[in-house]
Amino acid sequence: MKDNKAIYEVTDFKLDNASCLFYEALFHNANGYIGVRSLLEEGYPETYRYKRGQYINGFYDITKMKQAEKLYGLAEEKQTLLNVVDTQSIKLFIDGEAFSMFDGEVLSSRRWVDTDKGITGRRVFWRSPNGREVKIEIIRMASFHQLSLFTIDYSVEPVNFSGDIVFESNHQSDVANFFDPADPRTAEDRADYLTMESCELKDEATYIISGTSKSGLRVCSCVAHSISNEIERHFFIEEKNARCQLIAQAKMGSKVRLKKYAVFCDSIRCDDIREQAAIEIEQAQSLPIEQLYALQQTYMENYWKNCDVDIDGDPEQNIAMRYNLFELLQSVGKDQYSNICPKGLSGEGYEGHYFWDSEMYIQPFFTITNPAVSKKLIEYRYETLDMARENAQILGHQKGALYPWRTIMGKECSGYYPAGSAQYHINGDIAHSIIAYYLATGDIAFIQAKGAEIVFETARLWMDAGNFYKGRFHINNVTGPDEYTCIVNNNYYTNAIAQHHLRWAVRFYYLLKGNAHAKKTTDRIMLTKTEVDDFKKAADNMFLPYDKDLKINPQDDSFLQKQIMPIDDIPEENYPLLLNYHPLCLYRHQICKQADTVLAHFVVEDAQTEETMRHSYEYYEKITVHDSSLSTCIFSIMAARLGMEEKAVDYFGNSAKMDLLNLHKNTHIGIHTANMGGSYMVIVYGFAGFRLKEDGISFSPMLPKKWRSYRFKMCYQKSRILIEVNKTHCAFTLEEGEKKTICVYGEEYCLKDKLVIDR
Amino acid sequence: MKDNKAIYEVTDFKLDNASCLFYEALFHNANGYIGVRSLLEEGYPETYRYKRGQYINGFYDITKMKQAEKLYGLAEEKQTLLNVVDTQSIKLFIDGEAFSMFDGEVLSSRRWVDTDKGITGRRVFWRSPNGREVKIEIIRMASFHQLSLFTIDYSVEPVNFSGDIVFESNHQSDVANFFDPADPRTAEDRADYLTMESCELKDEATYIISGTSKSGLRVCSCVAHSISNEIERHFFIEEKNARCQLIAQAKMGSKVRLKKYAVFCDSIRCDDIREQAAIEIEQAQSLPIEQLYALQQTYMENYWKNCDVDIDGDPEQNIAMRYNLFELLQSVGKDQYSNICPKGLSGEGYEGHYFWDSEMYIQPFFTITNPAVSKKLIEYRYETLDMARENAQILGHQKGALYPWRTIMGKECSGYYPAGSAQYHINGDIAHSIIAYYLATGDIAFIQAKGAEIVFETARLWMDAGNFYKGRFHINNVTGPDEYTCIVNNNYYTNAIAQHHLRWAVRFYYLLKGNAHAKKTTDRIMLTKTEVDDFKKAADNMFLPYDKDLKINPQDDSFLQKQIMPIDDIPEENYPLLLNYHPLCLYRHQICKQADTVLAHFVVEDAQTEETMRHSYEYYEKITVHDSSLSTCIFSIMAARLGMEEKAVDYFGNSAKMDLLNLHKNTHIGIHTANMGGSYMVIVYGFAGFRLKEDGISFSPMLPKKWRSYRFKMCYQKSRILIEVNKTHCAFTLEEGEKKTICVYGEEYCLKDKLVIDR
Repeated sequence: MKDNKAIYEVTDFKLDNASCLFYEALFHNANGYIGVRSLLEEGYPETYRYKRGQYINGFYDITKMKQAEKLYGLAEEKQTLLNVVDTQSIKLFIDGEAFSMFDGEVLSSRRWVDTDKGITGRRVFWRSPNGREVKIEIIRMASFHQLSLFTIDYSVEPVNFSGDIVFESNHQSDVANFFDPADPRTAEDRADYLTMESCELKDEATYIISGTSKSGLRVCSCVAHSISNEIERHFFIEEKNARCQLIAQAKMGSKVRLKKYAVFCDSIRCDDIREQAAIEIEQAQSLPIEQLYALQQTYMENYWKNCDVDIDGDPEQNIAMRYNLFELLQSVGKDQYSNICPKGLSGEGYEGHYFWDSEMYIQPFFTITNPAVSKKLIEYRYETLDMARENAQILGHQKGALYPWRTIMGKECSGYYPAGSAQYHINGDIAHSIIAYYLATGDIAFIQAKGAEIVFETARLWMDAGNFYKGRFHINNVTGPDEYTCIVNNNYYTNAIAQHHLRWAVRFYYLLKGNAHAKKTTDRIMLTKTEVDDFKKAADNMFLPYDKDLKINPQDDSFLQKQIMPIDDIPEENYPLLLNYHPLCLYRHQICKQADTVLAHFVVEDAQTEETMRHSYEYYEKITVHDSSLSTCIFSIMAARLGMEEKAVDYFGNSAKMDLLNLHKNTHIGIHTANMGGSYMVIVYGFAGFRLKEDGISFSPMLPKKWRSYRFKMCYQKSRILIEVNKTHCAFTLEEGEKKTICVYGEEYCLKDKLVIDR
Repeated sequence: MKDNKAIYEVTDFKLDNASCLFYEALFHNANGYIGVRSLLEEGYPETYRYKRGQYINGFYDITKMKQAEKLYGLAEEKQTLLNVVDTQSIKLFIDGEAFSMFDGEVLSSRRWVDTDKGITGRRVFWRSPNGREVKIEIIRMASFHQLSLFTIDYSVEPVNFSGDIVFESNHQSDVANFFDPADPRTAEDRADYLTMESCELKDEATYIISGTSKSGLRVCSCVAHSISNEIERHFFIEEKNARCQLIAQAKMGSKVRLKKYAVFCDSIRCDDIREQAAIEIEQAQSLPIEQLYALQQTYMENYWKNCDVDIDGDPEQNIAMRYNLFELLQSVGKDQYSNICPKGLSGEGYEGHYFWDSEMYIQPFFTITNPAVSKKLIEYRYETLDMARENAQILGHQKGALYPWRTIMGKECSGYYPAGSAQYHINGDIAHSIIAYYLATGDIAFIQAKGAEIVFETARLWMDAGNFYKGRFHINNVTGPDEYTCIVNNNYYTNAIAQHHLRWAVRFYYLLKGNAHAKKTTDRIMLTKTEVDDFKKAADNMFLPYDKDLKINPQDDSFLQKQIMPIDDIPEENYPLLLNYHPLCLYRHQICKQADTVLAHFVVEDAQTEETMRHSYEYYEKITVHDSSLSTCIFSIMAARLGMEEKAVDYFGNSAKMDLLNLHKNTHIGIHTANMGGSYMVIVYGFAGFRLKEDGISFSPMLPKKWRSYRFKMCYQKSRILIEVNKTHCAFTLEEGEKKTICVYGEEYCLKDKLVIDR
């Protein structure tokens, strides 16, 4: 099995500007709290563009978003994830010569991410213009053990000389967010959101406190160093920079090692950020760094124990999957103040907002591998429930809650509501994730405490947004997942997930009946039995568009009457279409950005017959351009579900490698976390045919021809199961916890120990 | 008959700030080229807000209109009508005391507009704080004879003293456009669009040349004075002001008279603006001002000769109608570079853009009274046809032209495309106005030269925007007139007018067949017979939504499946709804801002049976809130058409008086020209049941009970007809031109001289 998938490495890595930007994101360090883009510590040539970004999940400022025409209720300001203080700049001087990979000669180089150890590294064998040769190794870590901590462990070994080594290590607040007026996915204007309040040197550590201009948030960063062979150390408190100069004596063949510790404390999560920073930096330095590495590795072991995926016969795919699942862990917020951005913490794409990607593409992975993470993600939604209630009011609803389409702290940040706030399905998506969490964990206590309230309040919104017409429940004027068709009536996905949602609202109501805490909740939100009866009535009579001639579910009421945009006639350079066609042009055609009805068939599969799903699949496949990274994984899963192995494999294709290969050509603005979650779902929900329902879990595994076997693990109701699929068998091993009933190829089994089933 | 409807006056007029702003618009002077808000020449107290506006029709700068989210093809800049140089400020000093109506004592006052003479006036009998009494009369005129000219004729008569009179008359470029961040109908930011290039004194006249920052337009204004009893005259060329001080000797009981001439020449209309201004100022002064007044009066006589409307039994309505038709003349552009703004030239509401209001609400009036004006309005559209072709490309159409929803010089200026560019019906509206012009004049030469090309190119757009589905031609993803429901499929109005449009495109094609010029046009635009056959096929199979149960035309495919928003539950303060409800909330309800299907039934009445129109009327009446000033007139006309006299009268109600009574409470930002045209249509198309079709003109007059009679005139194919309706008869008098066949109450008559028909 050993193809050393734990390490993804690039040797003799490229140094052109585009590659540098790409690696900044690809090799970034994050732990769900802090994220640091991976720049070369020593810097770049003057002509280079780079994005020296360091972020705290959920740490934002409020910025203006003027609408071209002011209309009631449209968001006129938004939250923006901030680039906070920079702690990664370190210049190195070797006997007076500045180290730069753009100068002298790079004899060899390597960058890597080690997903077993939870670190990234860079190694460079370099010859200076004056002929001095050094071996440099830099290890970076965003600690999972101590979320506030980011370390750089910088070793220099003189190869052919002895002499002084000087480090100029910066801790600077002169940072800004990135902007690109031409790209709708990044900010448009340079803005210096953070203002430095103080810069202080104490006990050889520097502290910078900065505050935002509008959101009122503050952050304190603290940087400390230790170095071997130290001769001298000087501090320079400059205008926006606390610079530390460290001088060490280096002997030929022996290493000088600098350890740089940076901690971040923000006012969202603690009261006295300055005091907490002092505590955190002390804690960080209280252990030898090797012990910090050991803690990191232990954390990773525990992580992989639950979620490792392994494909025998496709080492590249293995590395990609491993990388993806590591990135998900790096990206996901680990408290109720944060969630997971489409770009994780690797860049500012989408301005650090949270979308439905979390619930529908990423959370399914955590729910069945690390449900505690899922719980935190739900808690984040619970924290912002009041704002979702306010949002519902803004949209004209008397009752209930409507989650914003994109947000950091809970207020709607969509500038373009037809492809934003109009995506009411986010309510169903969030409910779906809570239902799945409940099914995977049986954690009724959490449903009772928080989950049900979200499900009820969001269910209420369907009742106000929709209405009965000729006996059927219609949901008009919403936008489904496919953003190439906006503001439609009875979007199939929306109605299907609303039906599922309403049914579970009823289910939870009765499950919790008699429970005192739950009663408090229903009393507080004044949920009555009549209302719950109405939920049921709406669900039972939900209008799900169906076309008798084509035997498919039309994407919405009017989808089929539109012109088909012939995909074959679209020139390559016109992709993605949203950057080359007026929205009205896209909307008046049958053309899909991404899986919509096909996604519904995956998420709510019991709503239709297999025949309808197959016809729908075939129909939508022809008109879907996959301009969204959320699409091919779903087509792959559904192909597997419908027995179309070849398609399933094709769609999976390189999707797991989207970032490693920079397939969307925009990894430099950040990794694609939803696609990473999606690539996991393809293996588990697609190839292994896993399903999570109230009557239990089920599998119907298939094996792509070119693989010899694959295996993965999952957690289900406090048990851990190893699933292995090879050419002849599939095997289920209960690694931990109590026996479980599982369903394989439609047959029920009791899994006690190990179960081997013929394929 | 004499109720002196020619003069609308206000005596002892109010001086509170709101009234001042209201009168600025109500008594503004304009001639279709230049418009001047009617301020008190001497100024206001410091705390007052006022809008010292002076505009040139079609004279604009280009301003930014950032979209909150950048999407392909959305307008990111717009044109804005500019407040040009101010020439109306005149301070008056009486023996050293400054005249101000806010100081001393106003013994009596009066303001008026004289629609026979084409002037406005103000008379004030004033006692100064020191007890000096003066009678002041100020006559203002925007000349129809010389469009560049605006005059102020200022008389002062000392009542109880003799002494020096000093005028400080300004000609200043220190002006800006108005803004109100809270009102979507005005600009949001103060912007000084015009930069003064030069300020020059020559031959006792001052010249100011200013240029725009982006559009590259320039304007030269020139001001000259003459004064009786002149003692001295001094000029002060200040930074942004050319001030002229005029001192005259005033004897008790005898008038001092100042005549101030201001002319404007702009670079859109002439090459050497400075030279032209000198010519124009000379021309203006070459005649005694009395002769200018006489020319103005003659112009008005000719105007009223064709379009006078008279109601016997409702003097207030008469004055209002007279005022309205005068304002339409003041507002309408008289060359191919301009059109007619919803606010005329009386304010900056809607930033001086032109909308469909022109073609559907105002042009119908000119077409049957002063068709030469209509022709110019069509020529304006012809001038911008190339930009409409470009606009079609932006919206993703391969062929044809799509007129912008709002524009000055032809480029789309909609900030919010769902209620802007998506209103494709503007193409049909423009075609409709050309068809009507042809029917009213028989001017096939103009159709051949310009009209047909517009009709063909805009017809082509339907073919690309629409598509056949199950044998019927559908037009998806457009917005109809009702802006409370955006981006819908098969909007009834749109489809009905598209059908009419396509049929006439076919008709014009065959009418012009064999004509050499027309062939050049069709060759140039490569219009083939096959294409024209397709026009016919689409028209013949146009899908016009019809609901069998309700026996109505649904406003669009999905209109009836939406919830009804109960009008009775909407609190008064929530109107207009667009300022108090999120667009999605409005869109998901059955609630109409304005006539939509009901308008279609008026404009394309032959598409449906009377029964369907009646049912539709009744249905839509219940859910229409008339938040648009374009609505009640249409409901009135259709009520008359369907024999509901009472409703017709009710809807007409005060609509003619909308501005005189400030019913929409926003006349201060400008008059409502479309409603003015609409009030005319109510009388002619509504009460008199006039229709203009290819087989001739027809009438079926009714008489509102409380009127004794009414009469109006119209021009039809070079004849002028007087129509009189009283309790027993209706009479048709051929005042000019050849005999005509007319249809009255369904019977055909030949009108030679006079025709009296029983009612």
